[in-house]
Amino acid sequence: MILTVTLNTALDITYRVPSLRPDASHRVSEVTERPGGKGVNVARVLTALGHEVTVTGFAGGATGRVLRDRLTEIPLLTDALVPVSGTTRRTVAVVDGRSGGTTRLDEPGPAIGHAEWSAFQEVYEGLLPSVSAVALCGSLPPGVPVGAYAGLLRTARAAGVPTLLDTSGAALRRGVAGRPDILKPNAGELAELTGSHEPSRATQDARRRGAGAVVASLGAQGLLAVTPEGRWRAAPPERFAGNPAGAGDAAVAGLLSALVEHRPWADRLTRAVALSAAAALSPVAGDVDRSVYEGLLAGVTVRGEANAA
Amino acid sequence: MILTVTLNTALDITYRVPSLRPDASHRVSEVTERPGGKGVNVARVLTALGHEVTVTGFAGGATGRVLRDRLTEIPLLTDALVPVSGTTRRTVAVVDGRSGGTTRLDEPGPAIGHAEWSAFQEVYEGLLPSVSAVALCGSLPPGVPVGAYAGLLRTARAAGVPTLLDTSGAALRRGVAGRPDILKPNAGELAELTGSHEPSRATQDARRRGAGAVVASLGAQGLLAVTPEGRWRAAPPERFAGNPAGAGDAAVAGLLSALVEHRPWADRLTRAVALSAAAALSPVAGDVDRSVYEGLLAGVTVRGEANAA
Repeated sequence: MILTVTLNTALDITYRVPSLRPDASHRVSEVTERPGGKGVNVARVLTALGHEVTVTGFAGGATGRVLRDRLTEIPLLTDALVPVSGTTRRTVAVVDGRSGGTTRLDEPGPAIGHAEWSAFQEVYEGLLPSVSAVALCGSLPPGVPVGAYAGLLRTARAAGVPTLLDTSGAALRRGVAGRPDILKPNAGELAELTGSHEPSRATQDARRRGAGAVVASLGAQGLLAVTPEGRWRAAPPERFAGNPAGAGDAAVAGLLSALVEHRPWADRLTRAVALSAAAALSPVAGDVDRSVYEGLLAGVTVRGEANAA
Repeated sequence: MILTVTLNTALDITYRVPSLRPDASHRVSEVTERPGGKGVNVARVLTALGHEVTVTGFAGGATGRVLRDRLTEIPLLTDALVPVSGTTRRTVAVVDGRSGGTTRLDEPGPAIGHAEWSAFQEVYEGLLPSVSAVALCGSLPPGVPVGAYAGLLRTARAAGVPTLLDTSGAALRRGVAGRPDILKPNAGELAELTGSHEPSRATQDARRRGAGAVVASLGAQGLLAVTPEGRWRAAPPERFAGNPAGAGDAAVAGLLSALVEHRPWADRLTRAVALSAAAALSPVAGDVDRSVYEGLLAGVTVRGEANAA
């Protein structure tokens, strides 16, 4: 069982319109709606690979009910979300049929009360003994302390559970001090954390801040990993056009999948890159077709060096 | 008791963003959410004036539940919506904090089944004996026959209940054949119905198509009415900037309010114009502050002539 934490879950709504024009009225031609938030997306990809996953975090209000209803439709997924009095946020992605561009509108999350945050920490601690890895993903809703991830990482380490952190901004800056086993920033998050736009230097710098390993996702260039065992670059089979939304979450799923199967770093990176590519090729952002993924695995190149034994 | 019919109810969501840029991501700074659809908006204004109102139409799914929950918060309003298996649509209005412009995204609306449409007609017919007027408002959801309003108007006439129709497109073209007592088009709907962009001619033409009276709303210029008793133009006290969304629904509420109190046409038009102006001045589109409305009444000018007795 893998545990993913999504403190700021979302109901992700996608609207297709013929062409988005500011200040105009639009009839939406197609509406899709599904559970979201980074940890939920990671869980969906993990279940597509056959892993059992528990999702926790917060859910509340009418959108929280819809979110939980929809989670019941995902096989292998256990819902351990903690109810809150506020309302789970929506995100609206408006896809322009002419340009193909996507305009995003993200609601703020619900304000989390002290008692709700305490209730979550208790649920989280109760889940840890039965999980083989935990991923802490995404933004913090209002009311959750900015150092939340550092605390959750320490609790997991005390329980002997390996951890992965994927967040941004202050939550990332403060979270890395909690010494995640794997930190998974993208290029922008890495630059924001370290002040360096040079990926190799920034990845090493991020690791010095407390992470056991840093795996930076660099878009179409693949992954750059600095780990206790060595350094690698992993690249997809070919450059391809695709929808980058969800590719980062798919990469996290790949790292976790190989981690819980005790695979070496080269395999972890190969899975992460192939899943990212499969997610980018999917017609639904972030979904992964398992056969597409398996077809991509053989074409991933991993170059680098293990540390001297 | 006044009855308003909203076959395509909606949950109206308003997002405020600092500045809307296509293809960018936006954090929504403020979210408001309320029951909508034209007949629901008309009902809200009527209750603000102290009228008891029943709303009927369709509601379903998670958004339908939220809509009905929120209707319970409106005093003097009775919910007689008919449940459907589809999901009530959302509308999203994105207000740009810099330009003040509004970008609208309207979901299509649930498909209505044959049995659901029959169930509605039965509920509607059952409500008519206890109401003093009925307003049929807004678009038709998929599955409702395009001639729906003509049939509903005939049923109301058979029950001796005065009617008002406010819709557009094919629903308007076909609906006017049902001979509403009052037809309330705006300038665009009037031109679409009659082919004439000259309001006075188009209003008379629309009346010849079957309406007892036609009250055309011409934005900041006020109303133009052609009725069995005579013709009038009614104008607001002064030109003012304001939010036109909801002003048409407020005008409908004014016409109904005076109709059920058996007021002459000049009074009906005065109320309609003052309510439109109050709605346009409201910080929340379409809401009416009763004291603002009452303050505007004295400044409305009505010019025209009654027919020779």
